Amino acid sequence: MTRILQSTNMAKIAVTDGMEGKAILLLEKAGHEVVNESFTQEQLLGGALDGVQAIIVRSATKLTEDVIQACASELKVIARAGVGVDNIDLEAAGTLGIPVVNAPQASTQSVVELTIGHLLASLRFLPRANEGMKLGRWEKNTLKGTELHGKSLGLIGFGRIAQGVSRVARSFGMEVHAFDPYVPERIAKAEHTRLHKSIESLFSSCTHISIHCNLNDETYHLVNLERIRMMPTIGTDGIPCGNHIVNCARGGIVDERETLDALNSGELTSLALDVFEIEPVDANHPLLQHENFHGTPHIGASTLEAQLRVGMSIVDSVLDILDGKSCDFVVNQSYLE
Amino acid sequence: MTRILQSTNMAKIAVTDGMEGKAILLLEKAGHEVVNESFTQEQLLGGALDGVQAIIVRSATKLTEDVIQACASELKVIARAGVGVDNIDLEAAGTLGIPVVNAPQASTQSVVELTIGHLLASLRFLPRANEGMKLGRWEKNTLKGTELHGKSLGLIGFGRIAQGVSRVARSFGMEVHAFDPYVPERIAKAEHTRLHKSIESLFSSCTHISIHCNLNDETYHLVNLERIRMMPTIGTDGIPCGNHIVNCARGGIVDERETLDALNSGELTSLALDVFEIEPVDANHPLLQHENFHGTPHIGASTLEAQLRVGMSIVDSVLDILDGKSCDFVVNQSYLE
Repeated sequence: MTRILQSTNMAKIAVTDGMEGKAILLLEKAGHEVVNESFTQEQLLGGALDGVQAIIVRSATKLTEDVIQACASELKVIARAGVGVDNIDLEAAGTLGIPVVNAPQASTQSVVELTIGHLLASLRFLPRANEGMKLGRWEKNTLKGTELHGKSLGLIGFGRIAQGVSRVARSFGMEVHAFDPYVPERIAKAEHTRLHKSIESLFSSCTHISIHCNLNDETYHLVNLERIRMMPTIGTDGIPCGNHIVNCARGGIVDERETLDALNSGELTSLALDVFEIEPVDANHPLLQHENFHGTPHIGASTLEAQLRVGMSIVDSVLDILDGKSCDFVVNQSYLE
Repeated sequence: MTRILQSTNMAKIAVTDGMEGKAILLLEKAGHEVVNESFTQEQLLGGALDGVQAIIVRSATKLTEDVIQACASELKVIARAGVGVDNIDLEAAGTLGIPVVNAPQASTQSVVELTIGHLLASLRFLPRANEGMKLGRWEKNTLKGTELHGKSLGLIGFGRIAQGVSRVARSFGMEVHAFDPYVPERIAKAEHTRLHKSIESLFSSCTHISIHCNLNDETYHLVNLERIRMMPTIGTDGIPCGNHIVNCARGGIVDERETLDALNSGELTSLALDVFEIEPVDANHPLLQHENFHGTPHIGASTLEAQLRVGMSIVDSVLDILDGKSCDFVVNQSYLE
């Protein structure tokens, strides 16, 4: 850290969903008071945080328009210690002149690695094989998987994470495709990835699909039965590998009811989810019992590295804004305009 | 297949552990009689296969000296539809003038992919997280993993599989090391892999170890408590990632009792095994219940691709030898000398 650890004014900073200890220490060393505590929605609406200059959240705290207004009297910055900001009303914050910052690069590598882990776990039945062994089954001859090599991977969204996934997937010998209307052709080309002009074209070209876009009106239930039916089930190498979907982005992009139908009918070979429409997932969720499904509890950024990087990045951004400096990671357009 | 599918003499070929259907068809199209059937050790010792010209096995059939002698009267070739030949007495076959062939390249990519899958499954708790969700647990905050990026991977053995693992591991940003007294420095250098002069030096340098050597007197129980204790637990990036071991090579190279002790004492962070000292594994094996262990039932080559390639390669080799041609994949020195 090259920053001089002294701000001109002492500020009160609320950290409501926890943050890496080293990062909190840096805020305190900079002379600020840190309130590291969770609040109920009622407490927030009652103005429990009114008077703080900064609020740092992860995904649990829901900063709705009402909550932001109830806490806004001295609020100078809202920070999301992570990437997705769907729990923050960006427009309401912007209207009140409050920038919202996130840490978009901190968890990239962790999500890339989890995505590849889920792909391989699906194709080689890792959770299922482990459970079977514990039950005394030796499924060497029945759990016949397929290779990533020689297959086509379709990436929905082609930001930093998808580009990282593309690099590793190519090292396995996959052919990589992507759909992202906001990414220029030259970026895809530099990553040896074929950019499609429509989501239908992507699904029609790929035996394996991985999701790396935000959740919004455009992407809600983007993965549905109709599109799953477009996927080929024979690899570019001629192997009948079936079709496979992984989502380590946001719940709601995959229509869980329709993908379960597709698993049940055999129109989808495997599904792996790190994110769900409703989290935490209920133990009775019918997907959890399907033998061709496996999942993890939203752990894409749950690594020591990601949490450390997130904390450091957020501390930098919050201190910059409290010091009246500019910050590269402001995400609310309504504030920037 | 460019081969002219007609041998001069019709031979009787026994396939005792199954083989890909397309491969069996090729043997039949070449004019041979294929006996696709399993036999007990007693049947084999009783000469059930005496009179066949070729025996094609996987790992289940044990071709001991006695069995080979009992079947040898017209035997011209023994083929292992796979890589490891520890179920075949190579010397006994050689002494009787019988070449043993295998398919060393067919499963390379499948084992590379399973190895990376196991590494990621260990670091991100994939089987454990999936089981937890089914039990209604949402362990987002407790299952904090680590990245492969910025860590050092030590490969025991640096043949084709290890070289493939090295390439993918480097795409994740790992630093790759290897120990293999039979591989020249230039091969490691071409793969940007640091070759160590001793196994102790490798263990002392790597937070992650993956095994890719044969099982023999030299490698039996090569991974033991003493060597595990040499492993660093902090990555080259300074992250306290612990130490992790994966074995997708052969059971017996890892001392299961000592690695369980190391898991219990916390001296080993995670262990993933595809191969075991005794297979099939008993459901009461104490490793299976350890939360930092997960495993698969020897499925390294259990992919459609590997089985197809194995079948094609073995058919080629068997037909070559029956036709009196030379074959690149003869593995018994005693025959070659």
